[in-house]
Amino acid sequence: MNRTHWMLGVGAVLLLAQPFARASVSAPPKEFSQETKECVACHKKNNPGIVQQWGDSKHYRAKVGCYECHAADPKDVDAFIHDAKKVKKPISIIVSPKDCSNCHEKEVMEMTESHHAKASRILGSLDNLLAEVVEGNSSLITEGFPEGNSPAAVSGCWQCHGSQVKVLEDGALDPATWPNTGIGRINPDGSEGACSACHSRHKFSVAQARNPENCGKCHLGPDHPQYEIYEESKHGAAFHANIDKMNLDSPKWIAGEDYNAGPTCATCHMSATRKQDVTHDVGNRISWNNRPPVSVRPEESDAKMGLASASIKWDERRDNMKDVCSACHESSWVDNFYIQYDALIGLYNNKYAKPGIALMKAAKPLLKPAQFSNKIDWIWFELWHHEGRRARHAAAMMGPDYTHWHGTYDLAKHFYTEMVPELEQLMHDGKASKDARKRAGANALRAMLDEVLNSDDHKWYLNKMDPEMKAKREAAAAAFKARYTK
Amino acid sequence: MNRTHWMLGVGAVLLLAQPFARASVSAPPKEFSQETKECVACHKKNNPGIVQQWGDSKHYRAKVGCYECHAADPKDVDAFIHDAKKVKKPISIIVSPKDCSNCHEKEVMEMTESHHAKASRILGSLDNLLAEVVEGNSSLITEGFPEGNSPAAVSGCWQCHGSQVKVLEDGALDPATWPNTGIGRINPDGSEGACSACHSRHKFSVAQARNPENCGKCHLGPDHPQYEIYEESKHGAAFHANIDKMNLDSPKWIAGEDYNAGPTCATCHMSATRKQDVTHDVGNRISWNNRPPVSVRPEESDAKMGLASASIKWDERRDNMKDVCSACHESSWVDNFYIQYDALIGLYNNKYAKPGIALMKAAKPLLKPAQFSNKIDWIWFELWHHEGRRARHAAAMMGPDYTHWHGTYDLAKHFYTEMVPELEQLMHDGKASKDARKRAGANALRAMLDEVLNSDDHKWYLNKMDPEMKAKREAAAAAFKARYTK
Amino acid sequence: MNRTHWMLGVGAVLLLAQPFARASVSAPPKEFSQETKECVACHKKNNPGIVQQWGDSKHYRAKVGCYECHAADPKDVDAFIHDAKKVKKPISIIVSPKDCSNCHEKEVMEMTESHHAKASRILGSLDNLLAEVVEGNSSLITEGFPEGNSPAAVSGCWQCHGSQVKVLEDGALDPATWPNTGIGRINPDGSEGACSACHSRHKFSVAQARNPENCGKCHLGPDHPQYEIYEESKHGAAFHANIDKMNLDSPKWIAGEDYNAGPTCATCHMSATRKQDVTHDVGNRISWNNRPPVSVRPEESDAKMGLASASIKWDERRDNMKDVCSACHESSWVDNFYIQYDALIGLYNNKYAKPGIALMKAAKPLLKPAQFSNKIDWIWFELWHHEGRRARHAAAMMGPDYTHWHGTYDLAKHFYTEMVPELEQLMHDGKASKDARKRAGANALRAMLDEVLNSDDHKWYLNKMDPEMKAKREAAAAAFKARYTK
Repeated sequence: MNRTHWMLGVGAVLLLAQPFARASVSAPPKEFSQETKECVACHKKNNPGIVQQWGDSKHYRAKVGCYECHAADPKDVDAFIHDAKKVKKPISIIVSPKDCSNCHEKEVMEMTESHHAKASRILGSLDNLLAEVVEGNSSLITEGFPEGNSPAAVSGCWQCHGSQVKVLEDGALDPATWPNTGIGRINPDGSEGACSACHSRHKFSVAQARNPENCGKCHLGPDHPQYEIYEESKHGAAFHANIDKMNLDSPKWIAGEDYNAGPTCATCHMSATRKQDVTHDVGNRISWNNRPPVSVRPEESDAKMGLASASIKWDERRDNMKDVCSACHESSWVDNFYIQYDALIGLYNNKYAKPGIALMKAAKPLLKPAQFSNKIDWIWFELWHHEGRRARHAAAMMGPDYTHWHGTYDLAKHFYTEMVPELEQLMHDGKASKDARKRAGANALRAMLDEVLNSDDHKWYLNKMDPEMKAKREAAAAAFKARYTK
Repeated sequence: MNRTHWMLGVGAVLLLAQPFARASVSAPPKEFSQETKECVACHKKNNPGIVQQWGDSKHYRAKVGCYECHAADPKDVDAFIHDAKKVKKPISIIVSPKDCSNCHEKEVMEMTESHHAKASRILGSLDNLLAEVVEGNSSLITEGFPEGNSPAAVSGCWQCHGSQVKVLEDGALDPATWPNTGIGRINPDGSEGACSACHSRHKFSVAQARNPENCGKCHLGPDHPQYEIYEESKHGAAFHANIDKMNLDSPKWIAGEDYNAGPTCATCHMSATRKQDVTHDVGNRISWNNRPPVSVRPEESDAKMGLASASIKWDERRDNMKDVCSACHESSWVDNFYIQYDALIGLYNNKYAKPGIALMKAAKPLLKPAQFSNKIDWIWFELWHHEGRRARHAAAMMGPDYTHWHGTYDLAKHFYTEMVPELEQLMHDGKASKDARKRAGANALRAMLDEVLNSDDHKWYLNKMDPEMKAKREAAAAAFKARYTK
Repeated sequence: MNRTHWMLGVGAVLLLAQPFARASVSAPPKEFSQETKECVACHKKNNPGIVQQWGDSKHYRAKVGCYECHAADPKDVDAFIHDAKKVKKPISIIVSPKDCSNCHEKEVMEMTESHHAKASRILGSLDNLLAEVVEGNSSLITEGFPEGNSPAAVSGCWQCHGSQVKVLEDGALDPATWPNTGIGRINPDGSEGACSACHSRHKFSVAQARNPENCGKCHLGPDHPQYEIYEESKHGAAFHANIDKMNLDSPKWIAGEDYNAGPTCATCHMSATRKQDVTHDVGNRISWNNRPPVSVRPEESDAKMGLASASIKWDERRDNMKDVCSACHESSWVDNFYIQYDALIGLYNNKYAKPGIALMKAAKPLLKPAQFSNKIDWIWFELWHHEGRRARHAAAMMGPDYTHWHGTYDLAKHFYTEMVPELEQLMHDGKASKDARKRAGANALRAMLDEVLNSDDHKWYLNKMDPEMKAKREAAAAAFKARYTK
């Protein structure tokens, strides 16, 4: 684990070498600043909730007030004089990770080098084609975007992934890009990320950050239901039944020492163990990246994103996670669990993902040119991006209902009753085409589909199951009928 | 805001002018009444839970007991002598809003003039055709309904929307219509609504009424998942992490003053602010009615329902809501949010709702006569009633997963992969028909579909995207591939 | 109710007559045993969480430590010497119900005779064909299973239903079969069940066992969403709003006496009432078994499984449940509720289940031989196994959204827009077949489908609704239009 920390150190140095100026004070003052007192005087009348939240925060106790975080350098693009009569110093609305790093340097360094900070890169991705064109249009015209943005992206994707915040001439923030606390937000100062994505203003409660609901704002839904999986797992049941024993607001929060009822998301992916320090790089304990169509080791995807953590191999990360598990599980339990988990990833990769990719490649000549104008585009997208992820994430977190019903069951159902028939239709149309390339494409797809369906994983569909296995199956079905039906 | 309250006053006068008699006492007594003592004597043996719930209520402290609410006028249709040997006075099982208004006049007036009280009007609607005929049958034969009711309506729709309670000859309540606490219940005394829909008997806990779960009994599911959206929003995460600081059972419960961790459903739609009193009319702070196929301003739908609040324009209602927001958000945040929200409503209305209505009208001559016997009836119904509402409600409450994945993603998927192909099939069959009207219908539908698909919002589907936008897209897709795939 | 208990007594005798030896001590010791002290010495270093959980348990207070439960007879198949240098006595990893029965005899007897203990029988069922062949493959090769198991079964089905735990030569547990706490686990000592499925180690918190989340690990999802239904019901809302008044860790926990805010799963199905003792046989209060395609009375399914409780008729079980209800509901409420519930079961059985079975039987000659290689196999499976159960369970527990939208609505939608068109396609292909049997099959299916669609429940689909009912409907639709649309 030393190596993990060393590499992040390298990343940190790179970060600090970046030429942007820090926008606020660099240490807690001894008294509330005069500026903060002026802010509070008005805002406790106009927005009492945020003043009270702050009053309940550690920042209050440390005399860190409004101005200590919102102060801006006059040269900052988003700096503005809030009220020329009262506070005459420039402030900015957004407190960026760079601002937070004045005091929370290690945390920001780790976050900046993590996948979380890069979440807005999806803005140029396939999903964004969906939001901007297929689902949406460019009807949200703003001062900063006369050509418009898609409301589906602005109120959808960007709210989790982060917007690229645009500052208008008067220092105001463009309404298409803010309010936004997406975790990969690109801030006016060039920094990436939004600490308030998880540390909700203005209390910045560590207890809330450790709550599964906090991660569940984004890590949920048809495509990556980590929250739902956690909730249905034994971990989630233990947490909810023992929430008052979770010691959630304790600064020292070491699994097995400071609490033992059950883990939250933070416990496993971020929080301290007896051997590991807290980390704000959420990727350092995961041994599979289950986001792509085919699951890969995390160092592969880190390398593609140019992250320093690309040098940390999956088995070191798995050891990090096993160290967390050991707080409550002995080693044979943990080792056996990983055998089960790896097997599910293998099943998904080999039975669904790789054949699916091959079939889609073979189908290409038979498709209409505009992506998502073919029904099979949607079927395949959901196979890997929705069902395939559900099965994989659920196996990782021991949620059997999601592993099976929302995972492998849906994979099989949609592969055999949606994807195969749609491919058959494409071949049927292709064979009848006057275009020789289409006819050739249909033949090539036929060969590929036959190869897939005759493979060991799929031949049952052609009624070519091994006779021995078939006999075993029939006996089981007979037993079932005797039990369940009249 | 004064105007809002003034108009409701008018409604209240109308309500009180109605000729039904109040069925119970009109002020809390000084001691427990003799009748209540008799009720308690038996029920603490037979149903101790309800006696204990009442013992934990404010009613108990005010000496308001069983009889004070359940007392009936002998002329009431549902009055009966419960036990001739003991309590010799008539009582009724149902305590209606009229009964509650003896003491809670303002609350009942507001509720009676709201959409909530009118929820059972859906009993004559399209949804009810579904429950009574398509999904159900008339097999629930009761004394009051020899022709039967549909079990799907009785255990489904009516439990949220409210039944029309039928009193049998012996004063008992017909089992098809009771148990029922649907919020728009039509009571034996003619009053509309059920206070116990939200104020669960017999504790009538204000804390429970302020809990999101309480609203979530009905405001959830595929067609209006407000509860799920709240839960995934930052508001929901803040609430659950700080529930012990929410001060939920405080009589004075002003956002920003008495609590600040986060809002619940009640906070935004009903509860007091520093400027507004509590209201039991849930429509006074919403600026869009997102229930119909095309979103409309709430004064439009109020006018159709004959509600006094039809005179309250949407911008006044929006100001009411902004006043709530201001407890924790400053004005530029709130104003920008509404720009994002309005844009999503515009996207939905213009890209999906209006073209969808036009296409369904054009398809009419090609459809089988029985509604819902055509597959496209279901597709279109879900487009506006399910997916369309999900996108709109989620944008209103800042739930990005619902806005996108359960909203605009599903809208696009079902529009392009379900609705368009089904229209194509109808045209194909229509053109081959011997019926000249069908052939003409097919041609008219063709023209309408071509118009829709060639419009700016949809032409990508025909691969007619603007070349410039297309080039931008292709670059983005290339970047995506470099990141996500091998 | 006496009879219920008497029959379970018979079952208990049968259980105790089984020839397996108990593996651990039979009464709590006066001091912590020397062996337990040795276990704790190491594990508090290696796995402090479990030691702390145990330290928070009643077992700790009773001096029942690690060894008292994990001690094994040297002849036990899973006995092994954990650390030859320290603890020299044989222990086993799994603490089976037989071990627990040393002290908790009544609870184990009741559980062993319940459906819960038999949950792993599904391993030979239709669902398992899905997991092993259709969804999965045999790629999880382990020492104990050289022919492999399906990862979809291991991480999916088995985690709720239970695995058949395999002990390897060195006493270790095969990783395909453990970790596993499925409730019907078949243990190395031959006993059935896993107490830790609900009583999570090592605190064994009764409060957690009474929490709805605890049952929700398995009783959720598309096929039996009891957890979701509870959560949306008034019972769930009352529980969450009053959890601090639920007295969840009280040994005496009698509904109406020790708590009254609302019931949890345990309250209705297991926990004590003023008249009934706690039971660990969860079937003794249910009056319908809603698991099969056609709902049956529980004594029927008990008889098929050879359970002693087959002698307990449904009406006795219903009386048991009504006794629970009476804690908070008077008898006319309860009686009326059951009329509503029974009506929904009747609607499902008669409109969907029985015609569905008849149609699938008639379709058989037209199907491809491999089960689940026909799209209609999936449609019918979900009709009864998913939507059909959702409607039935939701009516049982008063969750109107699940009764309607996830229940009867989905039943109708999939029956008319999926099942009927798929049957039409099969007939179309069958009629065009060169196989005379297929042509005859198509004719027979035609006759069956015509019979179904012309029946009173379905004739609306053919536009043959009774003219009177149709007129009533049209008026309602007109009213709806006046209200909802421009």
